[in-house]
Amino acid sequence: MEPNADTVFNFSAGPAVLPKAVMQKAQAEFVEWHGLGTSVMEISHRSKEFIEVANQAEQDLRDLLNIPDNYKVLFCQGGARAQFAAVPLNLLGAAKKATYIDAGYWAESAIEEARRYCDVDIYEAKTECDGLVAVKPASEWQVNAESAYVHFCPNETIDGIEINDLPVTDKPIVADMSSTILSREIDVSKYGVIYAGAQKNVGPAGICIAIVRDDLLDLASDVLPSVLNYKILAEKDSMFNTPPTFAWYLSGLVFQWLKAQGGVKVIEQVNRKKAALLYDYIDQSSFYKNKVHPDNRSLMNVPFQLENPDLDSTFLEEAAAQGLVALKGHWAVGGMRASIYNAMPLEGVQALVNFMKTFEEKYA
Amino acid sequence: MEPNADTVFNFSAGPAVLPKAVMQKAQAEFVEWHGLGTSVMEISHRSKEFIEVANQAEQDLRDLLNIPDNYKVLFCQGGARAQFAAVPLNLLGAAKKATYIDAGYWAESAIEEARRYCDVDIYEAKTECDGLVAVKPASEWQVNAESAYVHFCPNETIDGIEINDLPVTDKPIVADMSSTILSREIDVSKYGVIYAGAQKNVGPAGICIAIVRDDLLDLASDVLPSVLNYKILAEKDSMFNTPPTFAWYLSGLVFQWLKAQGGVKVIEQVNRKKAALLYDYIDQSSFYKNKVHPDNRSLMNVPFQLENPDLDSTFLEEAAAQGLVALKGHWAVGGMRASIYNAMPLEGVQALVNFMKTFEEKYA
Repeated sequence: MEPNADTVFNFSAGPAVLPKAVMQKAQAEFVEWHGLGTSVMEISHRSKEFIEVANQAEQDLRDLLNIPDNYKVLFCQGGARAQFAAVPLNLLGAAKKATYIDAGYWAESAIEEARRYCDVDIYEAKTECDGLVAVKPASEWQVNAESAYVHFCPNETIDGIEINDLPVTDKPIVADMSSTILSREIDVSKYGVIYAGAQKNVGPAGICIAIVRDDLLDLASDVLPSVLNYKILAEKDSMFNTPPTFAWYLSGLVFQWLKAQGGVKVIEQVNRKKAALLYDYIDQSSFYKNKVHPDNRSLMNVPFQLENPDLDSTFLEEAAAQGLVALKGHWAVGGMRASIYNAMPLEGVQALVNFMKTFEEKYA
Repeated sequence: MEPNADTVFNFSAGPAVLPKAVMQKAQAEFVEWHGLGTSVMEISHRSKEFIEVANQAEQDLRDLLNIPDNYKVLFCQGGARAQFAAVPLNLLGAAKKATYIDAGYWAESAIEEARRYCDVDIYEAKTECDGLVAVKPASEWQVNAESAYVHFCPNETIDGIEINDLPVTDKPIVADMSSTILSREIDVSKYGVIYAGAQKNVGPAGICIAIVRDDLLDLASDVLPSVLNYKILAEKDSMFNTPPTFAWYLSGLVFQWLKAQGGVKVIEQVNRKKAALLYDYIDQSSFYKNKVHPDNRSLMNVPFQLENPDLDSTFLEEAAAQGLVALKGHWAVGGMRASIYNAMPLEGVQALVNFMKTFEEKYA
């Protein structure tokens, strides 16, 4: 039988699986949307019909994350990588320094870009504990007094690391939440800026959300391209330039789907259940391993290795034959990685664990 | 009868109508693509399946525009407005000046952004001829000897102006072709950089094409955000950051559709026929007028005014009731605007002219 949407579970790290109900709705109205005789992607971003879509998406996101009124919600282009430049260029002001907490690949990528604009004060938060990768408690993190802000990445998709606490600082906290956003409850009021590429828990690649506290809108550098300027985007309701309308619309459908599931609190419970199912199986097995300390294991991205890496390609082939796809780990880490974002149902993780069990029985 | 895709002709200036065959194909494979049991937007941009889509789209665009080998084709984010900053930041090098030809709204928007990075030498190309808006011949344009490049916008969507010739200069020519690209034959080898937001003649909003001559890749400013750096994008095959994969895929389908139509040469003939039909009708009428000199009339965007502007809203309402939608002109110009990009069939323009005739008979 050819794979189809009912038999395939897609563990891609991003672009990632979207809720099936969302995809089916978008397909049904793809050519003719809302009785207009045209698709949503063929109408002006300034039409009243699209502005309604845009406003609804923003309101739903505000509801889901309980975003306070003194935060702007911006729909940007360029993904999180554009934000790696946008953050220092929007926030440094007269300061020449910023603190970056380093706990993995994406934090380091943000540091590399920030270095082009300021003196980066790096706090190395990764450590080892019981022979496993761990992150030092945030209460220990040191933030330079001259820093304009503190940047961290609470979920490292490649390393499979999650940070559950926050820097203790009076500086604005900036978080790359590309794979954290909407996966668990957060207190937005503790942050200065939250940004997130959509292609994990929000929607398709090509749109990026920035949630920016009002008082941080006036610090932009003279050399910041206008399309990345938080203040300009805020003043123009993210329509300074033509926004990626279809990606915005589809993100809005995901927000509605998430509300229908019961919101972030409920999906967090599902996510914890999914992650526990997988980590518990790995922990009791001597055939598979995960190298991250339990306190810092990612809810969203579960890297795991076979004790015998010679079996890696067989594992991937047999998994794919069962409809369990995109499990290959990042080259920097090797082995496997199961990304289990909001749109991955519990049954998908159960199917993966079942397969891992059978595979272990066959090859152990 | 409710409007549907068979009865509606959408004259939106952008995001604009896409070829119906493309939309139907994308709808059919929206949830399950190429037997993968998942959609094209849910797979990794680094998967072999997506890389095939990306490479095919680039090759088809190269074929359609006959792009020489010494040009890179980049798929970017941020639209043409991001390029307004990217162009000076990529091309100035040690120079402090650039020449911008001003013939309308978009050229002026590019100038405004460029001013933040260099001394802008402006050549005012707009003039009046026989009481109509016209553009001075390119042979008369003056280019400052110290300029790093000359920028112009060959089609001004708002003003309905088209420039058919090229600056006479040894400086690299940079063109904002957002609404020109693929509408008529061009000689890419005459340009340094061509860029175009997709949402007119290419695909959905959220992707932007930049065609960059090899020798211009080494001039980037230190402050240029990496996501806008032509050299980095070229070296990473436009996958330095996660690209807007669905928009890229859909653009590729448009390129294939265009090849199936016979390519740019053939679509240009259709476009000339469409434009002539509309302009000829306007010119013989004393009820409608277009204020642009025939030599500089846009092939793609036809603004027109009713001699009696009190009838504007009635015109728009009655047109919409006939399925002729998105005809309202830009606020800066007023009146109507019919955008007749590649995806607008001849029948759409014929239907518009028929309606204009009936409306004129009714209200003249």
